[in-house]
Amino acid sequence: MSKISPLSGFPELLPDQRVVERAVTGSLAETFELHGFANIETRAVEPLDRLAKGGEIDKEIYLLRRAQGEADDASSDRTLGLHFDLTVPFARYVVEHAGHLEFPFRRFQIQPVWRGERPQEGRYRQFTQADIDIVGRDELPFHHDVEVVRVMVEALGRLPVPALSFQVNNRKLIQGFYRGLGIPDVTAAIRAIDKLDKQPAEAVAELLVEQAGASVEQAQVCLELASIRASDASFADRVRALGVTDDLLDEGLTELAAVLEGCVDVVDDHVTVEANLRIARGLDYYTGTVLEIFMAGYERLKSVGGGGRYDALASDGRTTYPGVGVSFGVSRTLIPLLSDGVLAGSRPVPSAVLVALTDEQSRPGSIAVATLLRARGIPCEVAASPQKFGRQIRYAERRGIPFVWFSQPDGSHQVKDIRSGEQVAADPDSWTPPAEDLHARAVVATSSTDDTQTDTQTDTRTKEQLS
Amino acid sequence: MSKISPLSGFPELLPDQRVVERAVTGSLAETFELHGFANIETRAVEPLDRLAKGGEIDKEIYLLRRAQGEADDASSDRTLGLHFDLTVPFARYVVEHAGHLEFPFRRFQIQPVWRGERPQEGRYRQFTQADIDIVGRDELPFHHDVEVVRVMVEALGRLPVPALSFQVNNRKLIQGFYRGLGIPDVTAAIRAIDKLDKQPAEAVAELLVEQAGASVEQAQVCLELASIRASDASFADRVRALGVTDDLLDEGLTELAAVLEGCVDVVDDHVTVEANLRIARGLDYYTGTVLEIFMAGYERLKSVGGGGRYDALASDGRTTYPGVGVSFGVSRTLIPLLSDGVLAGSRPVPSAVLVALTDEQSRPGSIAVATLLRARGIPCEVAASPQKFGRQIRYAERRGIPFVWFSQPDGSHQVKDIRSGEQVAADPDSWTPPAEDLHARAVVATSSTDDTQTDTQTDTRTKEQLS
Repeated sequence: MSKISPLSGFPELLPDQRVVERAVTGSLAETFELHGFANIETRAVEPLDRLAKGGEIDKEIYLLRRAQGEADDASSDRTLGLHFDLTVPFARYVVEHAGHLEFPFRRFQIQPVWRGERPQEGRYRQFTQADIDIVGRDELPFHHDVEVVRVMVEALGRLPVPALSFQVNNRKLIQGFYRGLGIPDVTAAIRAIDKLDKQPAEAVAELLVEQAGASVEQAQVCLELASIRASDASFADRVRALGVTDDLLDEGLTELAAVLEGCVDVVDDHVTVEANLRIARGLDYYTGTVLEIFMAGYERLKSVGGGGRYDALASDGRTTYPGVGVSFGVSRTLIPLLSDGVLAGSRPVPSAVLVALTDEQSRPGSIAVATLLRARGIPCEVAASPQKFGRQIRYAERRGIPFVWFSQPDGSHQVKDIRSGEQVAADPDSWTPPAEDLHARAVVATSSTDDTQTDTQTDTRTKEQLS
Repeated sequence: MSKISPLSGFPELLPDQRVVERAVTGSLAETFELHGFANIETRAVEPLDRLAKGGEIDKEIYLLRRAQGEADDASSDRTLGLHFDLTVPFARYVVEHAGHLEFPFRRFQIQPVWRGERPQEGRYRQFTQADIDIVGRDELPFHHDVEVVRVMVEALGRLPVPALSFQVNNRKLIQGFYRGLGIPDVTAAIRAIDKLDKQPAEAVAELLVEQAGASVEQAQVCLELASIRASDASFADRVRALGVTDDLLDEGLTELAAVLEGCVDVVDDHVTVEANLRIARGLDYYTGTVLEIFMAGYERLKSVGGGGRYDALASDGRTTYPGVGVSFGVSRTLIPLLSDGVLAGSRPVPSAVLVALTDEQSRPGSIAVATLLRARGIPCEVAASPQKFGRQIRYAERRGIPFVWFSQPDGSHQVKDIRSGEQVAADPDSWTPPAEDLHARAVVATSSTDDTQTDTQTDTRTKEQLS
């Protein structure tokens, strides 16, 4: 095995960075479960014909073939691809296993997905998503739209990440508005408005005219609608002031107001929810609530999450399973934060204690101490070799292990906090490290500006690792 | 989306079965961390030239190609495949990231792997492995062989699975023995002996003669060696009684005895460790300790885990990283147990409480109760619709939710254990369910024989799901 260069678009975390990722996914799972969401995992592959239904995404799909497929293998006649999100496999899972599920079915799913797109910051070829969805059979009351947004707000509010903003809109609102306004091709108009984050308003206005058949005046009103933002129900008055009336528009306005209102008691400075009427989301399957999530200081990543209501994504022909869900980009959010040194793991190993070794003959004694500590839930490791104690302490230091344990020939024990240098007598049956030292955990840089100056070694490393 | 049939070889778990898998992987992770093993995840893909080095496995590799690869994409000129185990990617990770790791490096990894082989019970095209390895730089003392076996014995000993047997051998012992005996092709002899689990002894004897150049008498002695099994160091005397002497043989005998001795205090009736001198393991990279793990009553699955010492798997040309590790087949073990009804999840949802709903107007009040319960770590959900209480109780029953919460118009609260029917006054600020009801958990069938008779519904379902 010769020198190895990283594979572009497939970032891997070092052990201390993985501590952060596990803390984040563990915290998300805990919140989701408190709200009754069951965990599932779907297989990584789906038949291509199912994946390709989305339309826009098919050029990014990774297809599979066996290096030496056998001719008599019946399954080889169906092309498989790696899933590119968790929504399409979930819809398939619901239809396939519907007979064994209870509805409304709440589930969360935290898994990698794959897209063969050009790698850039926040965009990878393999990345982890955390999704929650609620799916009903035949019908799903609107209050679940509010529920799923609330749960994700609460879950993300517990993460050690910069401030997040949920920007919510409603497809019924847009569609009803366009219909009431008299736009000939409503779907094309939504696709055009969805491009507002990449193109200037004038270009989008041209698209509205050329592709949606709008007049120049209608295009202008569409852009005015898209400029409306508010953190309370006042957005509805501004929409009505544009003079368009439509039943579906009214329904959308009511639903959007209900999402904002329903989240009032879970938002704070850290996580906000606001109406943003330019949010459209390109995916055709959304039918009501749509939202995207943005992270303060990381607007260049575009959204770090999104989702919405889909009434017809999952169906077996007889039964339809309407759903609503939100997806959070774990890799898209964390990898830039780790790379910038905003977040770090407190240490790269789980061990809170290194049990020192006097000589190779005393290894069983050191193992016995370690066993007693572990029996009380204290992660620890025994020194690899009986080096001088100074070297064993440096060994612990390099790993970020805060405590070193020394057993004396007379059967007494001492434990040293290698950060303060304080060394005290200790009993392996009762000594416990401070709670904050017990497990490796995610830590937030106190001042990221200072840190990038002083901690250049870490900085170089993460840049290199995570490019 | 029309009716969907399962994809052979890609089993998926229902939510209650996933409860078991998460309990198992969570328990494994906890034990591994108590012993200082850091978690990592490697990307799912490796360049084909790296994967194909193993030799025996290349026909089973899934290769990737992008549905519409771009011509100007520099990375497209290197064929990627899905990893078929966690050892090869780990070796690559160590070499690639060596500058940022501390050695000896202990890591655990729990991830899916993919093999395009013909599906059968216990053999899938996507399945989850749990691996621990310890890797050194330039050298790795033998005591880590003992450590890694001890840790896996302890980890598996905590799982709710049938009795497990670690069957250990040592490549130095076999190689030294064959060399001392005068077998011309030692490597071919090891490959032949490795076939003893599939072929009768006479066929293996013929292979030893034909492929390893052994005489008929030598082949017989090889089979005698392979017949030796013992749970203590007595195996060494039986080997020596065969009259072969060799330095490497002696080293192997000493190491194997040390593994058995080092595990004496962690084995019990549930997990045993014994010397079994027919264990060879086909993979070429093993150089010392080798082992396979078998599960009582499931010998038809062959081994449910295995591993050993590899001195030269990871190298960048200048530096070599010797390692020792054990891999446990999570899917191979659990899916047959779930399918047989030996293991099950206590319920398919995390919710311990269903908060009932009197009418749609009282939803905020029910949400407030749920929020109070969640603040104290009690998973719960609010009823989807204000049906009659009897229907809401049946709704909870179908989900296995043990408690239903009723709020009275006068502001008082009652909670009903729907299994006993007992209903008592309760305060949402202080009421707590019994510990065993708080979270969904893995449960062991008390009598699997009876269960398969009476619980045919579950049986049919799991068979269907997991085929």
